[in-house]
Amino acid sequence: MGEAYNALKARLADYTHLQQAGSLLSWDQETYMPAGAVVSRGDQMATLSKFAHELFVAPKTGRLLRQAAAEEGIKDQPDSDEAAIVRVSMRDYKRERKVPVAFVEELERTRAQSHQAWVEARKASDFKRFEPWLVKMFDMARRYADYLGYKEHPYDALLDGFEPDMKTSAVRATFADLREQLVPLVHAISAKADTISDAPLRRHFPREKQVEFATRVSRQFGYDLNTGRVDFAAHPFCTSFSSQDVRITTRVDDGFFNMMLFGTLHETGHALYDQGIDGAFAHTPLENGASLGIHESQSRMWENLVGRSHEFWEHYYPELQQVFPDQLGQVSLEEFYRAVNRVSPSFIRVEADEVTYNLHIMVRFELELELLEGKLKVEELPEAWNARYKAYLGITPPNDAVGVLQDTHWSIGLIGYFPTYSLGNLASVQLYEKIEQDIPTLRDSIRAGDFSPLLGWLRQNIHQYGRKYTPDDLLKRATGRSLSAEPYMNYLRAKYSAIYGL
Amino acid sequence: MGEAYNALKARLADYTHLQQAGSLLSWDQETYMPAGAVVSRGDQMATLSKFAHELFVAPKTGRLLRQAAAEEGIKDQPDSDEAAIVRVSMRDYKRERKVPVAFVEELERTRAQSHQAWVEARKASDFKRFEPWLVKMFDMARRYADYLGYKEHPYDALLDGFEPDMKTSAVRATFADLREQLVPLVHAISAKADTISDAPLRRHFPREKQVEFATRVSRQFGYDLNTGRVDFAAHPFCTSFSSQDVRITTRVDDGFFNMMLFGTLHETGHALYDQGIDGAFAHTPLENGASLGIHESQSRMWENLVGRSHEFWEHYYPELQQVFPDQLGQVSLEEFYRAVNRVSPSFIRVEADEVTYNLHIMVRFELELELLEGKLKVEELPEAWNARYKAYLGITPPNDAVGVLQDTHWSIGLIGYFPTYSLGNLASVQLYEKIEQDIPTLRDSIRAGDFSPLLGWLRQNIHQYGRKYTPDDLLKRATGRSLSAEPYMNYLRAKYSAIYGL
Repeated sequence: MGEAYNALKARLADYTHLQQAGSLLSWDQETYMPAGAVVSRGDQMATLSKFAHELFVAPKTGRLLRQAAAEEGIKDQPDSDEAAIVRVSMRDYKRERKVPVAFVEELERTRAQSHQAWVEARKASDFKRFEPWLVKMFDMARRYADYLGYKEHPYDALLDGFEPDMKTSAVRATFADLREQLVPLVHAISAKADTISDAPLRRHFPREKQVEFATRVSRQFGYDLNTGRVDFAAHPFCTSFSSQDVRITTRVDDGFFNMMLFGTLHETGHALYDQGIDGAFAHTPLENGASLGIHESQSRMWENLVGRSHEFWEHYYPELQQVFPDQLGQVSLEEFYRAVNRVSPSFIRVEADEVTYNLHIMVRFELELELLEGKLKVEELPEAWNARYKAYLGITPPNDAVGVLQDTHWSIGLIGYFPTYSLGNLASVQLYEKIEQDIPTLRDSIRAGDFSPLLGWLRQNIHQYGRKYTPDDLLKRATGRSLSAEPYMNYLRAKYSAIYGL
Repeated sequence: MGEAYNALKARLADYTHLQQAGSLLSWDQETYMPAGAVVSRGDQMATLSKFAHELFVAPKTGRLLRQAAAEEGIKDQPDSDEAAIVRVSMRDYKRERKVPVAFVEELERTRAQSHQAWVEARKASDFKRFEPWLVKMFDMARRYADYLGYKEHPYDALLDGFEPDMKTSAVRATFADLREQLVPLVHAISAKADTISDAPLRRHFPREKQVEFATRVSRQFGYDLNTGRVDFAAHPFCTSFSSQDVRITTRVDDGFFNMMLFGTLHETGHALYDQGIDGAFAHTPLENGASLGIHESQSRMWENLVGRSHEFWEHYYPELQQVFPDQLGQVSLEEFYRAVNRVSPSFIRVEADEVTYNLHIMVRFELELELLEGKLKVEELPEAWNARYKAYLGITPPNDAVGVLQDTHWSIGLIGYFPTYSLGNLASVQLYEKIEQDIPTLRDSIRAGDFSPLLGWLRQNIHQYGRKYTPDDLLKRATGRSLSAEPYMNYLRAKYSAIYGL
């Protein structure tokens, strides 16, 4: 490679290492940091962010990017990893450059205070305490969108930061389609709600045994604990400090089986993606998932398409019964399978079942659009939230804590983020449908506890590429077409018609 | 404060935060990092070091230091915290500036490889594998000393980095004095060696109970776990990421009581120092101990002068007997007190008793001086090591692993570091003698399990100042005189004459 490319790589390595160090500081904050360290940790993280940002948006980065793009080996090899590194970094550079450093710092500071206000408001279940901060965050989101620029809608500018090239209009259309099909399915299931009970899952399951079982499954999926680890945190997450160090967190409820196992399988799905990125992208911003939606497609696939499948439990249920003989010895496989797939409209998104989950997302998407456009005022939000829950899920949150205050995203300025959860759900099934075509024995291998064919396919078609391709390109390369709600709805209808006898 | 001072403070804050982030990366490497992440972690740490170093040695730092030193509030208030921040940072700046960046990077790289070679050599107990790296490390130490400059001895330049203003000649004189008095004491004790047994400590002590007891004592000493925490690591250490986040590590041997408890009390002593530094020094290089020797005086005080005292065990032994009734129920207080104070020449420095410990240090100090001067060749080192152990401790290490390869220091270029352990021992007793004069009821309060008078004195006279004063100034302010071996030898003679009936 040419001189500019090599200099660019060195600069990107510094940038990446600073960001990775910042990620470790965040991870530590969520896992082991003593409570009294919160202020000094904030200072340390702000310094790392500042150095990383300044380094990346410096004119020298732009110069090296332009020079590298013109070098032999890059301009004549557009599909090479090296050209992708230049192309994707240029994209990031152009985006970051548009935002004044002063705004970035203001956002960092405001977000820290706003998050604190949200924590207190949620604890008190009192939206009013958070309201002024949410006003600020949406004001800043509008300014942010203006800095970034957009053609159709300010939301596009925000969404693009999480889901490159995705448009608000496309999300609207997809969600409208999805809602039209989901709502009747939820109604049909609701009519038979009492045919399935999750009582077998709501017994006492000792914590250590839960952890041991979940970790064993996670390793059998392929999560390499030589370059990963599992810790406990208030909110489960996956974080990567390089493909050599990909960690997940989880949490346990000893009175409800689902939280630990499915949370762990979800985060394992994220971790498998991060561990599978090609070493060619190490020390660059490309050592990351193609988008939040694609990342979520991996977590949801391992959590739901694998972890909530009949074939999965055919393999694991006898083992689980041995781990919990008192709790599950008298519960049949069918009973258990139906319990972990029980559909029930509920208030909390992260506890929602596969069928109703996307309705939670739609509520948020529609409301954040209206807030951004100014059609809805922040003070009117709790009422609008509850009305939308009533309309889509048929239930009304009894208080703000389990209603409008349940998610942290808006408090830290993550506006335009929620749709990626649903896009991930759709992508997970679209990919899985293709995998089943490519590997007709897929279900048999899962039934035998062998996940290597699945992981191998994902490594080959998704993981290795990191951010080399846009989400749309990646999906088209892998499945032959752009994202569609059709496979997802077909999957839900088939699976839940069988379970509920519709 | 003036404009330059404020700009300097902002710059020092960035520098400090980068270093603190680096310290967290190190802590993580020793505690939780998955093994496979070692290479990527090295890259991240190297980047943080580089940014911190470049920022600090940049001409702008020097300009701000000079301008701030001339501002009102600094030049007319030489004893103020602000003036100390300028003075001590200037000292660091001048030292760091002398060393070429290329040398710093070469040292970082060589040290990483050398450390790896040492790990492997120690595992195989084969000095030859490590020899070429040790040759390199001493060559680099000589070059380093030349960059830094010195008047009397190249070792002065190295020592000064760990113990500001300390001179090789002073260490030589102190150690000669100490050795002359220690060797006869060791001989006198050896003649009565069989009067004390540590068999009561070599029973099975379940790990969790050990940890619980040690942590309870640590908290009662005053270690604040709201701004601290205890983890496990192969080697016990204390690390600070600000006075709001001071962590220790420890390790447990379930067949030997001393390792966990005294290791924890030792690290707690370090942690109490770091937690007690005045907030005025936060975000500056002064939020640190005055020197390694002063730091060690704190750890050794809590470990030995408190933790191995009769009054301490008068309070804690009944409690300990309740924790371990089967192991200690039949062991009297006197028997136990003598067991934890048993003197016995041994191969491993970190397991040495109070009396023989400093002989281990002298061996290392003398050998590293001779190696640096070129009087001793690296290839002759194992033989010289064993000969010196025979001469001072009367024992010959059976192999390199428990002999010349036992310590990691030289492998990572820490040459000039060892004497600070002994300086810390001397300072611990010199301080404690003064504390007992200032607080005549000190032993009674310890007997009552109340450590607040002691901690209060240390906070007032040592901890709060961070690096504001040089070690010598600090000792003179606190005890009225410079470091002396006399209190230490008086203490050892009195304590061990009583124990061994000399």
